[in-house]
Amino acid sequence: MTPVTETLDDLVAAGGLDRLRAWLEEQGALDIADELVRLEAEQRAVPFRLLPKDRALAVFEALDPLHQRELLDALAHVDADELFAGLDADDRARLIDEMPAKVARRLLDGLSETARTNTNRLLGYADESAGRMMSPRFVSLRASMSASDALAKVRRAELRPREVLVLPVTDDQRRLVGAVDLPDLVTAAPATSVSELLQAEKYEVRVDEDQEVAARLMQEADLVALPVVDTEDRLVGVLTVDDAMEIIEEEETEDISRAGGVEPLGMPYLEASVLLLARKRAVWLLLLGVAAVATVTVIGGFEDRIEEVSTLALFIPLLIDTGGNSGSQAATVVIRAMAVGELRFRDIPRMLRKEFTVGVLLGLMLSALAFGPVTLFFGPAFATVISLTLFFICIWATFAGGFLPPLAKRIGVDPAVFSAPVITTLVDATGLLLYFGIAVTVLGI
Amino acid sequence: MTPVTETLDDLVAAGGLDRLRAWLEEQGALDIADELVRLEAEQRAVPFRLLPKDRALAVFEALDPLHQRELLDALAHVDADELFAGLDADDRARLIDEMPAKVARRLLDGLSETARTNTNRLLGYADESAGRMMSPRFVSLRASMSASDALAKVRRAELRPREVLVLPVTDDQRRLVGAVDLPDLVTAAPATSVSELLQAEKYEVRVDEDQEVAARLMQEADLVALPVVDTEDRLVGVLTVDDAMEIIEEEETEDISRAGGVEPLGMPYLEASVLLLARKRAVWLLLLGVAAVATVTVIGGFEDRIEEVSTLALFIPLLIDTGGNSGSQAATVVIRAMAVGELRFRDIPRMLRKEFTVGVLLGLMLSALAFGPVTLFFGPAFATVISLTLFFICIWATFAGGFLPPLAKRIGVDPAVFSAPVITTLVDATGLLLYFGIAVTVLGI
Repeated sequence: MTPVTETLDDLVAAGGLDRLRAWLEEQGALDIADELVRLEAEQRAVPFRLLPKDRALAVFEALDPLHQRELLDALAHVDADELFAGLDADDRARLIDEMPAKVARRLLDGLSETARTNTNRLLGYADESAGRMMSPRFVSLRASMSASDALAKVRRAELRPREVLVLPVTDDQRRLVGAVDLPDLVTAAPATSVSELLQAEKYEVRVDEDQEVAARLMQEADLVALPVVDTEDRLVGVLTVDDAMEIIEEEETEDISRAGGVEPLGMPYLEASVLLLARKRAVWLLLLGVAAVATVTVIGGFEDRIEEVSTLALFIPLLIDTGGNSGSQAATVVIRAMAVGELRFRDIPRMLRKEFTVGVLLGLMLSALAFGPVTLFFGPAFATVISLTLFFICIWATFAGGFLPPLAKRIGVDPAVFSAPVITTLVDATGLLLYFGIAVTVLGI
Repeated sequence: MTPVTETLDDLVAAGGLDRLRAWLEEQGALDIADELVRLEAEQRAVPFRLLPKDRALAVFEALDPLHQRELLDALAHVDADELFAGLDADDRARLIDEMPAKVARRLLDGLSETARTNTNRLLGYADESAGRMMSPRFVSLRASMSASDALAKVRRAELRPREVLVLPVTDDQRRLVGAVDLPDLVTAAPATSVSELLQAEKYEVRVDEDQEVAARLMQEADLVALPVVDTEDRLVGVLTVDDAMEIIEEEETEDISRAGGVEPLGMPYLEASVLLLARKRAVWLLLLGVAAVATVTVIGGFEDRIEEVSTLALFIPLLIDTGGNSGSQAATVVIRAMAVGELRFRDIPRMLRKEFTVGVLLGLMLSALAFGPVTLFFGPAFATVISLTLFFICIWATFAGGFLPPLAKRIGVDPAVFSAPVITTLVDATGLLLYFGIAVTVLGI
């Protein structure tokens, strides 16, 4: 993690292979991967080929599927085949998604029989399911085995370290009985039976379960690996913690993007073309624009009054901004509480009572603070209109920010979609109706 | 994960201990913890006491520090001491933060000498540092040891499974040399030297490093454990993957909250009082409200023109909403790319060029779409004003959404703060200036 003085960019431009090689030796695999993606796609093959074999695989694994695909394109067939075969089956499956069908076929053909079967099996599960993300390579034990026999089986299997940290235990029907931590197996007396070493709780996830549910379970229960079973409770794979972390990052990106009114890019920012960036925002921007047409209609209905009292126009942005902000504050808090599992359906009435009270408090605060200054400049009658509107807009927006996310979830929409921009737009027109209604009543216009 | 038919709530209200015990036996530790926090604080001790000892600790570990503290309060001293001693040192340190000093002192006194020293050491590191989150219990190996000696040392240490998945290797000055995966130690021939089994890359983090930097490194490099070293590169602890996942969730909650204009609650939603909920939003709401006063001033400056052409007032919300939305879209994407490390300082010029072009594209789309309908209702001159304003607001807001987050980071503010609400408020007044400026020029008023 030393600071980068020379960048890979400069070195590739300079063209000296010796300095390039020296630089590669000094850097960690993650740093090399980071620098590599900052080069133009066609320049990446040269520094990559200078890496020794084992480091090349480490760098390749640190890239995301899109960059992996680009690099495979740039390498000769034989290099590409070797890299592809070196990946975990689940990483291979994700990379295949990025590939044109013809290239995917060729790469799959280059695999060994077992590797190909494993990869194809994963490709059969739905995108974003636990099955798609799991590793099909694992060592399963029997409850009746001794610890020493179990360890011997682990040794014979020749799997990667992260694939044997937790060992699922099955019965003679291949049904999951529980799991054993490798350290418990190592520290147990050799004759101890596996059944005595089982984890206190049995955790499992169905192969068709949403990947986020699986990852959140691992996070909450502090699991390093989670057995994945089919509909008949038969063990089919193991989800490892590195996959769980990747899933959580992916889902957070989705939530954060939608909350900001953008569809997730699905690729690194710097790789995304301007057209893609614009497309991911255009639909939302249009929808919100169309929704904002309601505000034109509302103000249009009160145009005569505005002509009479033009001061009314002055407070339009302040009032709708306050509504939008308090609504999106409430929505943000509620959506997050739902995402991490703190709020369930039966907690909704309690949550709504809370949000209503919060709205009353914030409304009281804002209207009290606004009354003095507005009286000073525009007189007490106008100040009454502004304070009353702030009070009711705050309550209404906070309450709407509370009930819209669970409503969205009920009708099968991602609650994150119902955040800042949507609530702003929804609260705008209704807030203006409130404003003009109160103004007409109080000012008698 | 079977659906809950009877809730713990109902069972506690009914009061039958046998049915309560039967229910507890059927549920997993996570489900029990989930149900427990839905009870009133003083009701939680009864079902908790019915749990067998090992399950009680599992349930207790699944609770967050706030709920742990409440439960300790409700239990008798002797139960509390035992639970407290059963926790990992890092979890104990976090729990201590929640305790009144007197209670914390009493609980610490109840610990064994080693456990107390370990906990106190962690409490000496800054909040949100790697040191505060690490485990001070680990088995360190020497490079010259044989695999069988190393395994013997692991067996003697009697640590928890998750504390020995990765074993740091040090020299005779206690300086970190690298790390070995337990599975590699298990599968190696007994005489193999530890130096041959070292992980290909050496990863480490400084004890005073930000916890998020450490967690992101573990996520990117797929690490199950990360050695933590002091300023002299001496090994002081190990950060485990369950802690990394917790850190990432905490940081994501912070980012999402700030993006929505709320300070993070720091506790579960249902536990937070109405006053706390309101307080976490009040400051932001006030700041944004004060900023919105600029819009009152801008419109005030053009009040005569609005009196003349009252149609001008109609489009105020539509235009400022479009600015707010396109600005927060850009900010959301840029902030996320910065958070996951895709965007660095030297990528900023490239990013700004991209955002500018995206703004032009979106501006062109919106102004083209608006021109027809507005002409139909308000004539071509007014449609020209709206289309031109949409075009320039879109470019300006998208560009501002791109440059404000890096600017925030440069001056040491969380970039997430510069998201939807702040950008909306900033773009509002400038957008209105644009609008009235264009209107005055085009309409000649």
